[in-house]
Amino acid sequence: MATSEAVITRMDVKDVRFPTSLEAHGSDAMHTDPDYSCAYVIIHTDANDSLAGHGLTFTIGRGTEIVVLACKTLSRLVIGQKLSDVYSDFGRYWRKLTSESQLRWLGPEKGVMHLATAAVLNALWDLYAKLENKPLWKLLVDMSPQELVSCIDFRYITDALTKEDALQMLQENLSTKQTRECELLNTGYPAYTTSVAWLGYSDETLSKLCEKALKEGWSKFKVKVGADLADDKRRCALIRKHIGWERKMMMDANQRWDVNEAIDYMKELAEYKPWWIEEPTSPDDILGHAAIAQALSPLDIGVATGEHAQNRVIFKQLLQAKAVKFCQIDSCRLGSVNENLAVIMMAKKFGVPVCPHAGGVGLCELVQHISLFDYICVSASLENRVIEYVDHLHEHFKYPVCIKNACYMPPQNAGYSTEMIAKSISDYEYPKGSAWQQLIMEGKFQTP
Amino acid sequence: MATSEAVITRMDVKDVRFPTSLEAHGSDAMHTDPDYSCAYVIIHTDANDSLAGHGLTFTIGRGTEIVVLACKTLSRLVIGQKLSDVYSDFGRYWRKLTSESQLRWLGPEKGVMHLATAAVLNALWDLYAKLENKPLWKLLVDMSPQELVSCIDFRYITDALTKEDALQMLQENLSTKQTRECELLNTGYPAYTTSVAWLGYSDETLSKLCEKALKEGWSKFKVKVGADLADDKRRCALIRKHIGWERKMMMDANQRWDVNEAIDYMKELAEYKPWWIEEPTSPDDILGHAAIAQALSPLDIGVATGEHAQNRVIFKQLLQAKAVKFCQIDSCRLGSVNENLAVIMMAKKFGVPVCPHAGGVGLCELVQHISLFDYICVSASLENRVIEYVDHLHEHFKYPVCIKNACYMPPQNAGYSTEMIAKSISDYEYPKGSAWQQLIMEGKFQTP
Repeated sequence: MATSEAVITRMDVKDVRFPTSLEAHGSDAMHTDPDYSCAYVIIHTDANDSLAGHGLTFTIGRGTEIVVLACKTLSRLVIGQKLSDVYSDFGRYWRKLTSESQLRWLGPEKGVMHLATAAVLNALWDLYAKLENKPLWKLLVDMSPQELVSCIDFRYITDALTKEDALQMLQENLSTKQTRECELLNTGYPAYTTSVAWLGYSDETLSKLCEKALKEGWSKFKVKVGADLADDKRRCALIRKHIGWERKMMMDANQRWDVNEAIDYMKELAEYKPWWIEEPTSPDDILGHAAIAQALSPLDIGVATGEHAQNRVIFKQLLQAKAVKFCQIDSCRLGSVNENLAVIMMAKKFGVPVCPHAGGVGLCELVQHISLFDYICVSASLENRVIEYVDHLHEHFKYPVCIKNACYMPPQNAGYSTEMIAKSISDYEYPKGSAWQQLIMEGKFQTP
Repeated sequence: MATSEAVITRMDVKDVRFPTSLEAHGSDAMHTDPDYSCAYVIIHTDANDSLAGHGLTFTIGRGTEIVVLACKTLSRLVIGQKLSDVYSDFGRYWRKLTSESQLRWLGPEKGVMHLATAAVLNALWDLYAKLENKPLWKLLVDMSPQELVSCIDFRYITDALTKEDALQMLQENLSTKQTRECELLNTGYPAYTTSVAWLGYSDETLSKLCEKALKEGWSKFKVKVGADLADDKRRCALIRKHIGWERKMMMDANQRWDVNEAIDYMKELAEYKPWWIEEPTSPDDILGHAAIAQALSPLDIGVATGEHAQNRVIFKQLLQAKAVKFCQIDSCRLGSVNENLAVIMMAKKFGVPVCPHAGGVGLCELVQHISLFDYICVSASLENRVIEYVDHLHEHFKYPVCIKNACYMPPQNAGYSTEMIAKSISDYEYPKGSAWQQLIMEGKFQTP
């Protein structure tokens, strides 16, 4: 555990945005023009070690200023904290942030407030790992079961997972975890790509990117669907033409359909043999996902969701209702590592593989740590498990992800890989950064 | 329908807070020190009729500034709108606000963004009713079934309620609605009181308020529970001593318990014969509420929830899962009248009575309109139906609620009763209003 007696003295929050809408990167049936962005938090202490915690939460443009303000409002619960008080009972501190007696009315544990909570806690986890001079995944792997469960707030999930369940689960894997750590250091954690088939891409771009990805060794490909059935069929056929039928194809509707619409639509797309359909309907609709899962099971199409599941209570129910075959955690929508630990242990208990959502800004950098820990200490299996990969915006990070043979290679630098390059932050700070001033001057974006 | 060709020219947003924490008004097991507040919106047009739409969403102090900013961010979707475009296809405009391609990432339809959406839309409904020179409930009552369903976005609920279902439901009641309107104008809509037993009140205060409420004719009383079992037993026994066993007592845990904890705790409190237990656990836990409902059914204790149910998708599932015996809509957490219409029609279809959440700032003023409409046009029954009443802060409203014999009397003034007195807004605007400057000077609150 952290030994520092340092006290948090300052928290800076930045609104950082990238103009990805200009080239339709990230476009889908509901989010047609995302400008990948983040609320970015830097936490400073009074220690003379020059270490700072960097954290972020992912957004897609407009409204990032609201999350930034929410982070600033949370700062009164952060500044003045002794680090050892945070890290020695991290679950208690997590509850302090998420259950503040007046702020919880604005959620609780959902939407803007929970995104802001994630940004702040991601920065605290980055600092924690830096203090221990380890990459975050290794910090987690080296923690005792007792230390790990002390990071989790079990409120509202004890009917599915108790602290004792979690302890037992972690203890069972202790004797074999060294082997799995070595394995991952050698081969990495399997990934799939979402970069070839954004909804706004032309068929030509799609074909070109498919061929490029095949050459790079990718074997699992995700395609955005849901805006137009005929268009989807053409695009799916085109992808199958390139990747064949042995490789896996996943489909992602990004919440476009009602429950029965999802079932009908997917029956039409079943001929392209999707491994899963992701976000077929409202992320809040547990029973709807369960109905879709049941209807599509005979077609051998699994349901995947989670990137918009607001907290562990939604994941708990998705698992209880057998609504998901693939559990898609998110490093920035859930309340940071703490809540992700709760979800991956619930998923283990229910026998459902965790396949994290990634992409955006920094999501790949962050979530790889959780999956590495998951395999080494919780799931002990790679079956049906893949991390999403999108090849954008990594150049802005100090320690970008390293992909080899379509696998995430374990990060070696201390921290949570959250830290962006200082120049990227200042260039893309919205709207005053030089990149935005230029884009506004060129008439590509309006003055906010 | 509205005929105005007016265009929205300006939207003012205010942070208005009242220092209710000083006397423990509103205190419960999770919200120990609320300062009842709101993000307050005023919408102006270019018409020369001097009418403005006033709307609000309820908050409890810290963080209100975040909702205020979210309202300001939404204003780009409001300013410049022609009123007739909004009101002629209100469901479409509702979706425009809630599904904006970048902002929806911050929800969708939940937390800060949805609270802000409610404030904006409440102002638009207030303006709509003023333009028609009717109180809002009467505007709704006089709409045709077709006009009413055009206000609803049926996305994500068609597996429970289709537009055709809703139309049929409304048409069935057309021939008898006049009778029910007359009835309500004479006798009002039944209410219950939450004012006697806030968690922070002493036994002496509680006894005094009970006796006062009995004299005023109240027959249903809610008590806050969940912080301490022995304390709750003493308080419940005390209330029963005052009100006897014929009058109804409801209990409210404000999300304090895990699922099994709720069941165990309520078995202990069953001897006081609660009519319902409200918010026993996380507002996101549909399956948890269903488990609690099933366990408490043999004890004849119903489950009530909804004031923190973020949108119609959660209500849909609570109804589908038989998780609630009382459906507690909220005029400020749901997306205004539009989404409340969807929920009360789903509740009707599932045979569950709607008993709105009220209190706070303005919730009583607003939600009475929905319940009046519910009885006249949808439920056509008053059985097991009551609106919550709390006797605070009404003096700040231009058209405060009128309670007679423990019933809400139908408002007669044009609008949604949302409009606050100008002096109250300026005195309590946080932190620059004179009331706050005084409180800060007296050392009762810190400088923000």
